[in-house]
Amino acid sequence: MNYQFSTRVPKTNEDPVGNILKVAGSSDVISFAGGLPAPELFPVEALKKVTNEVYDQEGRSALQYSIAAGYPKLREQIVARMAQSGINTTVDNVMISTGSQQSIDLTAKMFINPGDTVIVEQPTYLCALDVFRSYGANLVGVEMDDDGMKMMALETALQAHPNTKFIYTIPSFQNPTGRTMSVARRQKVIELAEKYDVIILEDDPYGAIRFAGTAVAPIKHFDQSGRVIYMSTFSKILAPGMRLGWIVADTALIKKFTLMKQSADVHSDNLTQHIVARFMAEYDIDAHIQKIQSVYGQRERVMVAAMAEHFPASVHYSRPEGGLFIWVEIPGNIDTQALFETCIAHNVAFVPGDPFYPNAATPGTFRLNYSTMAEDQIKIGIERLGTAIKETMANAVKV
Amino acid sequence: MNYQFSTRVPKTNEDPVGNILKVAGSSDVISFAGGLPAPELFPVEALKKVTNEVYDQEGRSALQYSIAAGYPKLREQIVARMAQSGINTTVDNVMISTGSQQSIDLTAKMFINPGDTVIVEQPTYLCALDVFRSYGANLVGVEMDDDGMKMMALETALQAHPNTKFIYTIPSFQNPTGRTMSVARRQKVIELAEKYDVIILEDDPYGAIRFAGTAVAPIKHFDQSGRVIYMSTFSKILAPGMRLGWIVADTALIKKFTLMKQSADVHSDNLTQHIVARFMAEYDIDAHIQKIQSVYGQRERVMVAAMAEHFPASVHYSRPEGGLFIWVEIPGNIDTQALFETCIAHNVAFVPGDPFYPNAATPGTFRLNYSTMAEDQIKIGIERLGTAIKETMANAVKV
Repeated sequence: MNYQFSTRVPKTNEDPVGNILKVAGSSDVISFAGGLPAPELFPVEALKKVTNEVYDQEGRSALQYSIAAGYPKLREQIVARMAQSGINTTVDNVMISTGSQQSIDLTAKMFINPGDTVIVEQPTYLCALDVFRSYGANLVGVEMDDDGMKMMALETALQAHPNTKFIYTIPSFQNPTGRTMSVARRQKVIELAEKYDVIILEDDPYGAIRFAGTAVAPIKHFDQSGRVIYMSTFSKILAPGMRLGWIVADTALIKKFTLMKQSADVHSDNLTQHIVARFMAEYDIDAHIQKIQSVYGQRERVMVAAMAEHFPASVHYSRPEGGLFIWVEIPGNIDTQALFETCIAHNVAFVPGDPFYPNAATPGTFRLNYSTMAEDQIKIGIERLGTAIKETMANAVKV
Repeated sequence: MNYQFSTRVPKTNEDPVGNILKVAGSSDVISFAGGLPAPELFPVEALKKVTNEVYDQEGRSALQYSIAAGYPKLREQIVARMAQSGINTTVDNVMISTGSQQSIDLTAKMFINPGDTVIVEQPTYLCALDVFRSYGANLVGVEMDDDGMKMMALETALQAHPNTKFIYTIPSFQNPTGRTMSVARRQKVIELAEKYDVIILEDDPYGAIRFAGTAVAPIKHFDQSGRVIYMSTFSKILAPGMRLGWIVADTALIKKFTLMKQSADVHSDNLTQHIVARFMAEYDIDAHIQKIQSVYGQRERVMVAAMAEHFPASVHYSRPEGGLFIWVEIPGNIDTQALFETCIAHNVAFVPGDPFYPNAATPGTFRLNYSTMAEDQIKIGIERLGTAIKETMANAVKV
């Protein structure tokens, strides 16, 4: 039959990134296209031990329905972690979500009426763009440099779009660029949000994975008026299969979030919430995160060294101080899709930049991931990538 | 600050049912207000055993990101279960959700444009009403009798509302009434959906918990054209803390559901999906469900026997053949809220009927739950309830 979908449903079933991941998943291809945490770092034995304790000591309550805001002991653990990173908050300001994706979806559902403007970094996390579009947002991209969103461009966008509901930013080790917003800009973005009376949606999945440079406080740290909705997740610091994230916001907002959450999925997996709360009570999650930082930092250095060796000097790439991604920009109006196909011919893959842009994409841009790959594979893959880039640039010059 | 929410957000933070559950949760009160499965029936030891196997044999993949449609082995198990209940389907027609609440939310998001009509049973599951309202649905209730939705009333509603997107029904052991739609009406509802070109959303969380009468095939069994979206859950047959449900629908719809699911929470908890798949592979879930049927059936009979003894003869109540709920209707335009307060004074509680109605509620109606209470408590509670009903009816007559 002919289904009559709502306007929120994407017209096509096309999944360009899914298609890329399929091509990149071929066994001969060295793929930098993914965005997965390194599974060899998952603390399987520790999780198994605390899971057994959950079954033995609180099994029936962990398996029963629970409250929408989330398991109170887990929220207490999160409050303590937040204090470490410069956010002083309370259990009543924290809601557990079914991962950051749900935090983004609930925020979008809560604020966006069709036609409202959402300001985003350009490029940004593509699945956030999908969500904002599904609720009818008018997406406005703001250019970035190595210090994050450009503040003059942001103010211009705010002036031009008085119907802006919120600014969506990933200030630390951004997806896809790996860039980090400077302290000065974090303070400035709050100032602009105050001036133009908009909300800031601070998405911080990677902030804890810093392997170089100096820690920077979250934007939420500078928030005086409840204007920042902060969200993070256990996906990158523990394991993404257990879909658990959290939101920190003004209590008035958490009340609304909790109502929306109840309608969305009643509450997040209660067994998993108990497992993670117990893991944090019995193990040193900071020591675990240091292991992740160390492994990812080493892989990033190997990748960057290989890029310095094999990429043409004119190619620009970000130097992330944490997170999972490097952003590459090739000069000269290179056709990213043609480059992708050349790379596949050389058995190496990336995610082309296009889907990360809210509107028109900058050609010749792409994202590389270094978190899941062994060092020797990184070296071989980057060498192949360098060859493909050189070929493509040479062909572009000829045309 | 003054937050500017979207039109999807409820204006108030009032949570009438939450308030009732709080009052009902006082230690002196015997509460029939909840809707929880009996925790003493959760197969904790079996789940612990299979969880250890998941960690030992597939821990890293269970803890990693997975695909939005859900763990293929779990979907295979569901296909086999569906065949038992009269739905012949394939893995490509099944998507895992984060519980039935998410299945309802995704369906609503997928089909409802503001102003579209959704036809519902009257009364019906209140959290479905909240979801439909949040997407701007025009809710139209159809009256029921002991055989479910009245088909003439349904056709009248379909004629009156040509902008109907779907009919939402809980055909087996409905929440809140405990009623089951007859086979003849299941066939008729398909016929009407064909005639008026609408979708049917068949919500079946309780269908497996039949403790009396004869099995009736799901509406989906009679679907020839992909018009029925069937949804069920592990919440009532296994454990609700692990938020896992499923949708069975036409492959074209499952593709869209999967896109929407990816935006909503990427995928459901992967660890829990592995646990449940392994539980179903190694244990006899039908034997487990028989235990639930037996315990709930006994509690229902005890409750009904006590109602026959202590309720005035003029009070009508449903006789469910399965599920968790009995629906009570008191004649004579009784004020349900006044009755609730009298009951609390007598230390017994229920959920008043009002929030289950899409529009105006029938006075003197309420829902009783029998799944979580020991038999002696059921007897005492129903005796108290009988006293409170008699008092309230006597007062109403005086006025």
